[in-house]
Amino acid sequence: MSVVNQEVLQSRNRIKGEVLRGFGVLEQGKVGWMEKPAPQCGADDVIVRPIAIAPCSSDVHSAFELQAPWLMNRILGHECVGEIIEKGERVQDFEVGDRVVIPCTTPTWKHPDIQDSYHQHAGGLNTGICFSTYEDGTFANLVKVRSADMNLALLPKDMAPETAVMITDMMTTGFHGPELAGVKFGDTVAVFGIGPVGLMAVAGSALMGAGKIIALGTRPNCVKLAREYGATDIVSYKDGDVLRQIMDLTGNQGADAVIVCGGNDRTIDLALAATKNGGTLVNLNVITGVDSLNLSMSAAAALVGHKTIKGGLCPGGRKRMERLIAVVQAGRVDPSKMITHRFRGLESIEKAFQLMVDKPRDLIKPVVLLD
Amino acid sequence: MSVVNQEVLQSRNRIKGEVLRGFGVLEQGKVGWMEKPAPQCGADDVIVRPIAIAPCSSDVHSAFELQAPWLMNRILGHECVGEIIEKGERVQDFEVGDRVVIPCTTPTWKHPDIQDSYHQHAGGLNTGICFSTYEDGTFANLVKVRSADMNLALLPKDMAPETAVMITDMMTTGFHGPELAGVKFGDTVAVFGIGPVGLMAVAGSALMGAGKIIALGTRPNCVKLAREYGATDIVSYKDGDVLRQIMDLTGNQGADAVIVCGGNDRTIDLALAATKNGGTLVNLNVITGVDSLNLSMSAAAALVGHKTIKGGLCPGGRKRMERLIAVVQAGRVDPSKMITHRFRGLESIEKAFQLMVDKPRDLIKPVVLLD
Amino acid sequence: MSVVNQEVLQSRNRIKGEVLRGFGVLEQGKVGWMEKPAPQCGADDVIVRPIAIAPCSSDVHSAFELQAPWLMNRILGHECVGEIIEKGERVQDFEVGDRVVIPCTTPTWKHPDIQDSYHQHAGGLNTGICFSTYEDGTFANLVKVRSADMNLALLPKDMAPETAVMITDMMTTGFHGPELAGVKFGDTVAVFGIGPVGLMAVAGSALMGAGKIIALGTRPNCVKLAREYGATDIVSYKDGDVLRQIMDLTGNQGADAVIVCGGNDRTIDLALAATKNGGTLVNLNVITGVDSLNLSMSAAAALVGHKTIKGGLCPGGRKRMERLIAVVQAGRVDPSKMITHRFRGLESIEKAFQLMVDKPRDLIKPVVLLD
Amino acid sequence: MSVVNQEVLQSRNRIKGEVLRGFGVLEQGKVGWMEKPAPQCGADDVIVRPIAIAPCSSDVHSAFELQAPWLMNRILGHECVGEIIEKGERVQDFEVGDRVVIPCTTPTWKHPDIQDSYHQHAGGLNTGICFSTYEDGTFANLVKVRSADMNLALLPKDMAPETAVMITDMMTTGFHGPELAGVKFGDTVAVFGIGPVGLMAVAGSALMGAGKIIALGTRPNCVKLAREYGATDIVSYKDGDVLRQIMDLTGNQGADAVIVCGGNDRTIDLALAATKNGGTLVNLNVITGVDSLNLSMSAAAALVGHKTIKGGLCPGGRKRMERLIAVVQAGRVDPSKMITHRFRGLESIEKAFQLMVDKPRDLIKPVVLLD
Repeated sequence: MSVVNQEVLQSRNRIKGEVLRGFGVLEQGKVGWMEKPAPQCGADDVIVRPIAIAPCSSDVHSAFELQAPWLMNRILGHECVGEIIEKGERVQDFEVGDRVVIPCTTPTWKHPDIQDSYHQHAGGLNTGICFSTYEDGTFANLVKVRSADMNLALLPKDMAPETAVMITDMMTTGFHGPELAGVKFGDTVAVFGIGPVGLMAVAGSALMGAGKIIALGTRPNCVKLAREYGATDIVSYKDGDVLRQIMDLTGNQGADAVIVCGGNDRTIDLALAATKNGGTLVNLNVITGVDSLNLSMSAAAALVGHKTIKGGLCPGGRKRMERLIAVVQAGRVDPSKMITHRFRGLESIEKAFQLMVDKPRDLIKPVVLLD
Repeated sequence: MSVVNQEVLQSRNRIKGEVLRGFGVLEQGKVGWMEKPAPQCGADDVIVRPIAIAPCSSDVHSAFELQAPWLMNRILGHECVGEIIEKGERVQDFEVGDRVVIPCTTPTWKHPDIQDSYHQHAGGLNTGICFSTYEDGTFANLVKVRSADMNLALLPKDMAPETAVMITDMMTTGFHGPELAGVKFGDTVAVFGIGPVGLMAVAGSALMGAGKIIALGTRPNCVKLAREYGATDIVSYKDGDVLRQIMDLTGNQGADAVIVCGGNDRTIDLALAATKNGGTLVNLNVITGVDSLNLSMSAAAALVGHKTIKGGLCPGGRKRMERLIAVVQAGRVDPSKMITHRFRGLESIEKAFQLMVDKPRDLIKPVVLLD
Repeated sequence: MSVVNQEVLQSRNRIKGEVLRGFGVLEQGKVGWMEKPAPQCGADDVIVRPIAIAPCSSDVHSAFELQAPWLMNRILGHECVGEIIEKGERVQDFEVGDRVVIPCTTPTWKHPDIQDSYHQHAGGLNTGICFSTYEDGTFANLVKVRSADMNLALLPKDMAPETAVMITDMMTTGFHGPELAGVKFGDTVAVFGIGPVGLMAVAGSALMGAGKIIALGTRPNCVKLAREYGATDIVSYKDGDVLRQIMDLTGNQGADAVIVCGGNDRTIDLALAATKNGGTLVNLNVITGVDSLNLSMSAAAALVGHKTIKGGLCPGGRKRMERLIAVVQAGRVDPSKMITHRFRGLESIEKAFQLMVDKPRDLIKPVVLLD
Repeated sequence: MSVVNQEVLQSRNRIKGEVLRGFGVLEQGKVGWMEKPAPQCGADDVIVRPIAIAPCSSDVHSAFELQAPWLMNRILGHECVGEIIEKGERVQDFEVGDRVVIPCTTPTWKHPDIQDSYHQHAGGLNTGICFSTYEDGTFANLVKVRSADMNLALLPKDMAPETAVMITDMMTTGFHGPELAGVKFGDTVAVFGIGPVGLMAVAGSALMGAGKIIALGTRPNCVKLAREYGATDIVSYKDGDVLRQIMDLTGNQGADAVIVCGGNDRTIDLALAATKNGGTLVNLNVITGVDSLNLSMSAAAALVGHKTIKGGLCPGGRKRMERLIAVVQAGRVDPSKMITHRFRGLESIEKAFQLMVDKPRDLIKPVVLLD
């Protein structure tokens, strides 16, 4: 249809014939650089030039563990702050030149399921998470964002892009843990795993008024930062049976909320055993490589102890971003403390990604700055 | 201490030297009649003479499946409507002669956990469920009820004891399913198992405004009654793959709420697969004979699909009974429709219990009337 | 812009040069028929030909009590079931010829506020309620519906249009009462006013498991229908002090939930006095003609008794309609029982409207059928 | 009855013939010292010797504004940390010599209403608040606390009594504001009045993850502390129209939550106008001297804008105290920052009380230490 062609032409024109160049999955298990035609900007969409991007553990999963056909020749990345360089004709609230925070979850908000249930799953499981799944991701010179008015938030003038990029996935995901658990004043919370999502789960729990926060982890810099974000107690497998330690810290009751941010399928059983009757276990972790979970009847209190099990990934959308930006602006938490490695220039995303693969002991979160 | 001895003497005096005679677990796997000293009425307690009692599947579990030391020489039964024949000195709201509805869950309400979490578990898992666990049950001539002012509800003059005895466990437990699931107007609910708890889960779901209610079961009288209580669709394993049938009935989405009221550990996995992303699975079933649950990652939508898993037994206490009595009095549901077998006299509890063991096809719920 | 012009032309073409003809507000306080150019069908919209429409008290308010400039030359009406005669190019889920249920609240679902708060108010107070406010209403030969995929629901083949039209406002509004109050099993609910919204509040309360439902009203046919929908007690001002009667029926506690569906500003104070400490008052009534509410400190329990006050109008959108349709299809409630007067042909909307003005004693709800 | 007499004798014996001496209301509008027989310790109760007490604005209200018969010859005070000097025979979890935190709200927890609604109102409005209403208060050498196991919390060894006494009313009441409002991550909260309850409402809002917190007040030390507790913006009537300032700070939306901690009946209308559609107004203030509230229809958004109004005082009980102690121990908030004036010895409660009457500009909260 001619209307579409015209759109395409205008789009290509505006971004000056630039091609899309990005780092992603070339074929199953092999990553590298690729070039493609520039993305076309739909009427509700924008094209953004990244200012700050960051790799995430799930980029590593996508590259080496998932075996999905849509991942072939797919640019990775879903954490991004950028500048709008082109906007669709129906975009009302943003202008070319605006610097924006892009949530990693960008539903179209056009499926009626958003009226009814988790927007992450409108129309199907995790359909809201489109970057580097069924659309190209953010490790690129150009990024298309769907439904801009519904997904973008303005980057405040006084907020560093590297701070804001920590909001797009790490903070929204980590904060979703205590949120799903419904943490109340004085609750005891245990966080299993204190990588960046776990650290944000600690910070979010503190910000929902938790009392004791027990963080499970061993890396010194993560432990130190967990304490800064509000952990009151640290538990490490190096100090003996982890469940025993948690039970000792909770008067043998277990925690009101347990948030799983790492580990494997066995972690869920352990975490459930550490959950109080009447308490809630929240999983924020993508568990790969197994077909089933085995939960012991005692950990589950035989499914009659009013333990609740929940799990889900990163809430997205504009309001979510605006809300989390407001939390950071108010000085309640500084997610940029997690940044341990800074790089400059798009090319260095390759090194930053490799860090996530290698996980050196001093790594928490790398960031790549592009302006 | 002399005060206690005096209490004991008064108690024995009031119930005229009667001994406690009841039907229960003589030794592991062997049921029969036993005699004991009459129960002593504590200051907050009452002694009740049963008017209507009913056996429950969990009495059969207790008799033949559990292997707990406290079950030896223990009178069974936890469903009862009775007349107060003795009251403790601190009981204010009830008098000797009052006919009362006794919830199967009778916490003391004296543990601070009641301020904080599920009363069923104040001070420990299922501590609120004391009948035939660590105190003698209701299949007896005399039943002691703890904390009478906090646990009993008056039997309305116009309510048959057999109707009220259906409230004490079946209705409060079955209604807890949609309650825990948070059923909303127009939700699709699937109920796995349509014995009496499942039937009440159907009725409770209808009474929380569910749209489609899919009941899984095969017995003709249960199916018929499920429809009367509000089921719109019946699914039977005889008609092929159960999950496929549910998916067909839900446009391949799964149900908003799935309530498990029977089956075994495999049922949970099936039920979870039948739960929509963003939906809730509630277990109301006591699962015995296995050490662990196996949940497939796909059924669990890999623990990131915002499926919630909950489970817990019968809410108790006075207000709960008064509320459910009000629901029945308002004509919203008639739980006495479940009664398929009626007996007279305490001795016949043995036959009624045997029915629960044998489960003839025409059985839904037996009741024994004693006045 | 040429694109729009083309759209306009196509639109006019498709509906064959028909003009829009409808009944509405000619000028302040004067109603009558008017003609306008046919509405233009936007890309996300549909044009519907009404099959069933119904007038509502708020149409009378709009005509004679509100003094808003946008009401001049405005077609009234917001309750409608119709057949799609034209669809915009982006409408995916509906086809020309589909018979659809149209909620009275039709947000565009394009404002980010829908991610955050009540969709009725996305972008401003009651912006979701566009029919006969800032767009022409449903008392017409042609009705434009915004964001069709997000607002319409298919009329089930086995559901009469007159039944479905009762869902579009009366049922969604009335059900919003117990919903906002969070009615629980066994709650005592008082409904002030048993016109059609009040009757649906009664039915909705019963469908959320209320025990006692006290309905305030006097008209015999409304009283009779209130009982059919689940009211257990009727209170009338003719029988003396209304608050006294409610207190007598609630053991001097007041009701857990009080839902106001009629009356004036003084009704709110009375209703608040009838609300239990810890209970909730919900207003569903459009109160006109006063500048302020006066609430006595005793009725408000001096604002420290944990009484909650809420108020809001009709939830809309596709999922809401689909959910309520499911409730009706399941046989949980039959809203068509409210229809006391049936008319045929668009012209008769004038008579139906006049009935709402005159409110004869035998009126509950009129409907106009157009096919 | 002889049992009671024996109890009385034992009680008097244990506290060595001491009489009860305290500062309170002698007659309407006149305060001073009084002596009475020592309180009798019931079986579930304890007698405590205060270690730290603090006067509160509501003591001033009780003394000079309320005109209740039960206030004659009544010892004032409801904030207290003390040492147990006598315990009833049924008290299990505490011993003589234990130092304990006493909530200002001490229900008996023996009324069935605690199963169903706010414990503050079990059996009637504010019945949980017994100190200096229908029992003698804490400005005394001896304080009786009802239902000790259900109401007391141990004072942690590392917590100063003056810190803990700030929890008993100020923190539990102030934190109840954001709790009732259901503050979520990134909400904008406005707190009207930044005396000690308002300051704790600010701190509690920050601890529930609020973004912008707008505090209304003028006293420099309160403003300074409000900022320390998390306020991001200060609004003062000295800077012009308060509502206009709030609207400017909220993009003309109003706040998601408005918490009223001071002012008079007109404040409620102003606060309601400052509440967003879909938002919540919470009142924590005891409003005296008026018979009714006047709410403008526009502030109330005519009761159809989904604004919620709530109000209630200090949650009490053991778990509440333990939870808030855990919050303080975790370092999330330091309520002792509010203490501006410290006194020593019971006699000085008179001076501390007079400070609350005079309200000098440098006052936030006085405390009296007794050991």
